[in-house]
Amino acid sequence: MSIVLYEVAGAGDMRPSPYCWRIRWALRHKGLEFTTVPLGYTEISALADGRYSRLPVLEHDGEMRNESFEIARYLDAAFPDRPLLFAAGVASAAFYDGWTEAAIHGPAFCPVVQDMHDRLRPADQDYFRASREKALGQGLAEASAGRDAALAPFRAGLAPLRAALAQAPFLGGAAPDYGDYIVASGFRWIEQVSEWPALEADDPVSHWLERIRSLRG
Amino acid sequence: MSIVLYEVAGAGDMRPSPYCWRIRWALRHKGLEFTTVPLGYTEISALADGRYSRLPVLEHDGEMRNESFEIARYLDAAFPDRPLLFAAGVASAAFYDGWTEAAIHGPAFCPVVQDMHDRLRPADQDYFRASREKALGQGLAEASAGRDAALAPFRAGLAPLRAALAQAPFLGGAAPDYGDYIVASGFRWIEQVSEWPALEADDPVSHWLERIRSLRG
Repeated sequence: MSIVLYEVAGAGDMRPSPYCWRIRWALRHKGLEFTTVPLGYTEISALADGRYSRLPVLEHDGEMRNESFEIARYLDAAFPDRPLLFAAGVASAAFYDGWTEAAIHGPAFCPVVQDMHDRLRPADQDYFRASREKALGQGLAEASAGRDAALAPFRAGLAPLRAALAQAPFLGGAAPDYGDYIVASGFRWIEQVSEWPALEADDPVSHWLERIRSLRG
Repeated sequence: MSIVLYEVAGAGDMRPSPYCWRIRWALRHKGLEFTTVPLGYTEISALADGRYSRLPVLEHDGEMRNESFEIARYLDAAFPDRPLLFAAGVASAAFYDGWTEAAIHGPAFCPVVQDMHDRLRPADQDYFRASREKALGQGLAEASAGRDAALAPFRAGLAPLRAALAQAPFLGGAAPDYGDYIVASGFRWIEQVSEWPALEADDPVSHWLERIRSLRG
């Protein structure tokens, strides 16, 4: 059996993509051996004759799949005897996915975008700047100017996550599942691309991220 | 066996409290017979020598309990052979609880507060107005003046719920569980106390609420 994870890479060991982190953790959750192929943003189009515009892409025994949520579902279907990623069902995982976009990726994007640019491979920086400035309608430096003011509302917006972690060590209960990986990947992205202090060290969310790190890397 | 649900009542059949709806639905979920005692806000202090400041209170064979989340957990513990409310664990339910406060109760409060006042029993209206105006720091009419402008952001904030309902008929999967009742109770509150059109009729959230209504009333 051969499993290859094609994932977005920044400069050095930096891995910015939260969606790729989800699959990395999902593969470890299922105890599957895999190799990774790190690609800069401008290298993605060379993969599979340009069939994919985004990563992760997972290659299993020669067959490629994309879209992290679908890859995770495939892993449960292909390896049903290994620990399930969706033991609690797909609806709650999809809820966490939507919440992560709204409460983490959205509000953290501007605060970290300039830092993220600076930590990409030099060959990817022009592409990143142009595409993100177009999407934001402003320059990266301008977009990240409100990063200090964005901190308090960002932290306040994590209340549902703290409520859950007051009840159990993981969203999945006694052990993490794909819902945990979805939400945690947002914080891993922030931490990889920026020094923006998204969390205080004594936040229960920080302790939960440490538990995931110690289990899944 | 005797089960009594003490619940907040408005004028006529109006039942405003989302927390009481959760327990009503939870009791039906478990197939338990119960009677209800409707109390106006100013009658709560007469219950159990003023031991409780809020409802619901559940009385089971003479013993009283409060706090909806704790009551629901008690029902699973006391009746483990009946359909579980927390089959997916308590952490996800607590997450939905925190999200419901942040995404439903919070943003809908001002838009509906004047209507809610008007639909309470006349004897409760002065108490309600005084306590809510103190909490809001403004008059009820003033607080509800932005109700039209509040509609679009409220609906946009429901994206995580729509993402979940795109995957399964209920947050609990094929059948509703306590997570569904937590979130749905916010909409039932809005609908009971106001004409504020929180949802469009063709919103998947509306269809989900209809499915819950047809199962649990």
